Amino acid sequence: MPIKMYLSEDEVPRKWYNLGADLPTPMLPYLGPDGNPVTPEMMMPIFPMNLIEQEMTQEREVEIPQEVLEILYKWRPSPLHRAVALEKALGTPAKIFYKNESVSPAGSHKPNTAVAQAYYNKISGIEKLTTETGAGQWGSALSFACAQLGLECKVYMVRISFDQKPFRKVMMQTWGGQCIASPSPDTVTGRRMLEMDPDTPGSLGIAISEAVEEAVSDPTGKTKYALGSVLNHVMLHQTIIGLETKQQLKKFGISKPDVVIGCAGGGSNFAGLSFPFVRDKINGDDIEIIPVEPASCPTMTGGTFTYDIGDMSGMTPLMAMHTLGHDFIPPPIHAGGLRYHGMSPLVSQAVISGLLSPRAIHQLECYKAAMTFARTEGIIVAPETSHAVASTIQEALKAKEEGKEKVIVFSLSGHGLMDLKGYQAYMAGDLFDYALPPEQIQENLAKIKDFPPVPKR
Amino acid sequence: MPIKMYLSEDEVPRKWYNLGADLPTPMLPYLGPDGNPVTPEMMMPIFPMNLIEQEMTQEREVEIPQEVLEILYKWRPSPLHRAVALEKALGTPAKIFYKNESVSPAGSHKPNTAVAQAYYNKISGIEKLTTETGAGQWGSALSFACAQLGLECKVYMVRISFDQKPFRKVMMQTWGGQCIASPSPDTVTGRRMLEMDPDTPGSLGIAISEAVEEAVSDPTGKTKYALGSVLNHVMLHQTIIGLETKQQLKKFGISKPDVVIGCAGGGSNFAGLSFPFVRDKINGDDIEIIPVEPASCPTMTGGTFTYDIGDMSGMTPLMAMHTLGHDFIPPPIHAGGLRYHGMSPLVSQAVISGLLSPRAIHQLECYKAAMTFARTEGIIVAPETSHAVASTIQEALKAKEEGKEKVIVFSLSGHGLMDLKGYQAYMAGDLFDYALPPEQIQENLAKIKDFPPVPKR
Repeated sequence: MPIKMYLSEDEVPRKWYNLGADLPTPMLPYLGPDGNPVTPEMMMPIFPMNLIEQEMTQEREVEIPQEVLEILYKWRPSPLHRAVALEKALGTPAKIFYKNESVSPAGSHKPNTAVAQAYYNKISGIEKLTTETGAGQWGSALSFACAQLGLECKVYMVRISFDQKPFRKVMMQTWGGQCIASPSPDTVTGRRMLEMDPDTPGSLGIAISEAVEEAVSDPTGKTKYALGSVLNHVMLHQTIIGLETKQQLKKFGISKPDVVIGCAGGGSNFAGLSFPFVRDKINGDDIEIIPVEPASCPTMTGGTFTYDIGDMSGMTPLMAMHTLGHDFIPPPIHAGGLRYHGMSPLVSQAVISGLLSPRAIHQLECYKAAMTFARTEGIIVAPETSHAVASTIQEALKAKEEGKEKVIVFSLSGHGLMDLKGYQAYMAGDLFDYALPPEQIQENLAKIKDFPPVPKR
Repeated sequence: MPIKMYLSEDEVPRKWYNLGADLPTPMLPYLGPDGNPVTPEMMMPIFPMNLIEQEMTQEREVEIPQEVLEILYKWRPSPLHRAVALEKALGTPAKIFYKNESVSPAGSHKPNTAVAQAYYNKISGIEKLTTETGAGQWGSALSFACAQLGLECKVYMVRISFDQKPFRKVMMQTWGGQCIASPSPDTVTGRRMLEMDPDTPGSLGIAISEAVEEAVSDPTGKTKYALGSVLNHVMLHQTIIGLETKQQLKKFGISKPDVVIGCAGGGSNFAGLSFPFVRDKINGDDIEIIPVEPASCPTMTGGTFTYDIGDMSGMTPLMAMHTLGHDFIPPPIHAGGLRYHGMSPLVSQAVISGLLSPRAIHQLECYKAAMTFARTEGIIVAPETSHAVASTIQEALKAKEEGKEKVIVFSLSGHGLMDLKGYQAYMAGDLFDYALPPEQIQENLAKIKDFPPVPKR
């Protein structure tokens, strides 16, 4: 039995899977500030129409363009590994598999949607994409994708990360992307923020506002904005991960997994691996599907399902999703990609439909798990990914207690070679877990109580 | 036609290939300070006997232990990519392939031998390995390998790199390796150097001396030393790269390449890809085989083939190899792994046998090539690897001029994600090429003229 399963390029799925078509209750529409549903036309200043159509599609499957596939082939299909050394170290009867998305040139799953979004913008005549980035994974992925499609790319990087992680900027620049600290002098929003506080560390909310402002204010209409998570079309593009995994498990002789695990910040990595399995669960398969979030940013396990905005300043429509309130500032854990107040509406809706079993884990347990993983399986995972590893170890030890030969699959969403500061702090004993007073969450949720309620169903 | 070829694990070669058995002239023996050949027993304080036997073997093939294969399977067989996007950008009729060794957990080809060396030490009852590292690739790889085999690992890292690249140390520590700045207070050599100059930046020569000193002075005999390049057994372990590549080319429908390219510092990456093709060349195939070195450290193209020591202080035996003289201090180019005064004796002997066509390229051309590669193929390569990319582009453009559909294969020895400072300096216009006065080389070579001469053949 091999410990690693590849597919050939012609086995790569030709269609993405849209969970929205199979959810027991239809998705709730995005709403404008007036409480009325957002129309496709209202999103046109930000996104090209082909992506807006994907955002709203009810089709179960969407064809992957050949041009997109040919770029994805540079690293796809990604390998599915059997974690034999980890199993042995844990003494578990469980079979642990991980889908290795760290093999992309940008080092994470993000290019799966970055390439697709760059492609759809390109064929719409767009010449430049703007976006924001926090830790830097998404900005790197979009810069890579834009180089592949011949688009300009401008990334507004939250100033504190821009200063702390200079090499993320170098990555983006190597691919031809422009990376600028946010707030910046390039936008009205940025200039206003800098006037108020020239030394501001910035925030994801400000960076989103700047990126959207640049896109909508280009008089030629040749600039659009790209988002790396949360939205339906992003989840769609990531399902190639789970579709490949299903084929690879079959080649391992496994008809279905017992447990599927992914870390979830905005939800795209988790959705990518899990949605094809959620479909199987809807169709009757017995699978436990676990999105793992930081205990210090417990959107699904500590927040509420309601209408909220996706940024901090109202540039996005209202979305029905799990949220901690858009004013919630997550503690400075190292898993920057999981520091988000909301959750993908598709993932959220799957949660309230009872299809998922969310978990929250503190960062010390996650780093401990990541160290075990590095010394057994070898790969140094991203701080975000460490949440999936920690949950996997919990499940594998549970299987050991129960004496069950469970099949556990998790998504290794990225490597941590650009994030070694967290490992350094962990080994130095400088990391701690953040206690989160429930009243802090309640305060933030109180601020959004005037948004339209979600209908009772 | 796919753009990327995998093999299954059961197609991974079961035997390494020893070029020494096929070279037209027999290898010259290592000599001691007295000019007499070194015996296996003399190497025993440093290496275990099973590796000494491999170092001296005349066998054409050496079986790869199953336990080693099972660790290599974590990333092997590595993919062979067709560089379609690069070909298109260059407008060349050449078919360009690259063997992607960056997919190992440590990010380079180095673990191929690190795992094998850790294994042979382990079964000899050794409990700890010491080594030196410059840029950090080898120290990382050995730390990874020691974690896999359950050995302790101690890495003496040249102080200037230790201070400049703190994250290499974190990588090693994550795998359980101990990484210490050299010179260190842990050895007699280190203490003496620190007394002479507490602020010394250190050197590879000092670091080797410290690592060897620690190994030979362990009274229990349970500590040995491991070297990441130069020696015959290291070249042997790396041939798995080229053996896999030959099979993958066949699956692409290609019976033989026209040009084979690899960067060469100590020689192990180049040897790994090329030696199986050198064998084919000896047997009559028409293949141009190009080791590429920095123009500022031109061991093969500017040095001489003679007896010299492998370090700077005479801890190693005399080896017949290409050398710039062991006192040669290469300019501070970013490709730290290529800053070495000598060259693998096996590679050197293949050069003097007329089997190889060495090239020297300056770093600006290499970084320019690496930028082109990143924006077409996507992967940000290591500064060392950029030398192979630059040579590949030269050959592809030559094929375009000649209108020939040549098949070019090069080794992508590692990614550059831990070495982005060089890219940053290149894009900022802060890099330059180092002119190397020939008299500087002559001076250093003059210092070794009293070593025994190599026999005329």
